[in-house]
Amino acid sequence: MTSPDQHTLAHHFIITAADCNSQREISIAHLVTLIIETATEHANSIGVGFDRLISHGMSWVLSRLSIELDTVPSINRRYKLVTWVESINRLYSERNFEIVDVESGSRVGYARTIWMAIDMETRRPADLSALHILERYITDRPCPIAKQGKLFPVTAPTSEATYMFVTSDIDINRHVTTRRYIELIIDRWELGFWDANKVKRFDIAFRHEARYGEVATITAAPHGESAGVYDAAIQCGGNVTTLARITFVPRT
Amino acid sequence: MTSPDQHTLAHHFIITAADCNSQREISIAHLVTLIIETATEHANSIGVGFDRLISHGMSWVLSRLSIELDTVPSINRRYKLVTWVESINRLYSERNFEIVDVESGSRVGYARTIWMAIDMETRRPADLSALHILERYITDRPCPIAKQGKLFPVTAPTSEATYMFVTSDIDINRHVTTRRYIELIIDRWELGFWDANKVKRFDIAFRHEARYGEVATITAAPHGESAGVYDAAIQCGGNVTTLARITFVPRT
Repeated sequence: MTSPDQHTLAHHFIITAADCNSQREISIAHLVTLIIETATEHANSIGVGFDRLISHGMSWVLSRLSIELDTVPSINRRYKLVTWVESINRLYSERNFEIVDVESGSRVGYARTIWMAIDMETRRPADLSALHILERYITDRPCPIAKQGKLFPVTAPTSEATYMFVTSDIDINRHVTTRRYIELIIDRWELGFWDANKVKRFDIAFRHEARYGEVATITAAPHGESAGVYDAAIQCGGNVTTLARITFVPRT
Repeated sequence: MTSPDQHTLAHHFIITAADCNSQREISIAHLVTLIIETATEHANSIGVGFDRLISHGMSWVLSRLSIELDTVPSINRRYKLVTWVESINRLYSERNFEIVDVESGSRVGYARTIWMAIDMETRRPADLSALHILERYITDRPCPIAKQGKLFPVTAPTSEATYMFVTSDIDINRHVTTRRYIELIIDRWELGFWDANKVKRFDIAFRHEARYGEVATITAAPHGESAGVYDAAIQCGGNVTTLARITFVPRT
């Protein structure tokens, strides 16, 4: 539901078994799906949704996303995602999220997203100036997590896999789903590692869209000397499709 | 919501982009997820849900499912799934579903499911006699689609793939997700085939639970001489994990 001033929208959800990973917590892929749905709902409600962009021959694409969690949302509990717009310029718009445990009322995490528009014909970045109406909804509501740092390709992988994209990986725009990119990254760590560790922060940047039948190489490696911090990348042919960084903390 | 007499429950949903396949229709995997969630809601509301079964050391497992669709539910439309119980005996309970397009009011399809209980320790079938309360909710509401016929392993595959189960394939019970089994079957047909054909009927039987790290062989072949009907199977080691049959009809 939108707030009376429409500057924020709250999306309520319950985490079902199908939304969870093997640790009975929301999977990162499902959390990102909910973040995208909440962003879409708010954009629609203030008149800057996909329908409006299509009239300009453009479409929203998620460019970067960062999530930071104090507590990982878990099965059968009620949460809400609250979203608001931080900025817009010609090239991109920043939209933030608060994740709230509805029963306790406590904030369990935050997310930052950066959205670009692409020209539907050329699939190249489009000019967001036509959406100046979005400026009215900018708020200075704080989002206390750091903005996404620069992500780098993995140069000396300690983990590597290849995967060919199949029918169920393809979305309504004929590209690979956000879910699949994220799962391919998550899968670089074995089940026992996830039993012993949980995600504190997850950063991902979407660089290039992969398609049906393309073969991806997924790599991961520790990020410098920082304990629990890893870089990951998905490449297709010569293109970097996705870059990610995961910060793990041990379960206690 | 449950009806006043609690004999049926209706679960409302809107199909978002993330719920769809590349043909902008609900993916079979997502439809099955919604069917399971609707069954779970109704079982909980009449006191025979997972919580009740756990007190007997048992858990519900979906054994067989058949879906028949006149129209495949499509993006951004509102639907409801209405569920009711057809039967219960010592070994299994039959539960049916009607899929209704809320805007037009028309039924677009039906589903039949068969649920067993397993002993949580032995993972062997359990006796459902303790749930005799479920008999009160049996109705003779008709479900006009045929019960599931016998499904057979694929003997002379015309399509075959292998796949190792990874972290994101594992559910809260440490077995492979229903979603993954279904996607592995869906993926035996290439994207162009799905562009030209759609599912008229989907039958699946879950025989044996697969686990992390197991390697599956997925096979498919035409079912006898019937145009558009195919059998599919997932095997792990010597075990048949899943059997399925899909009836396709050309898109017009």
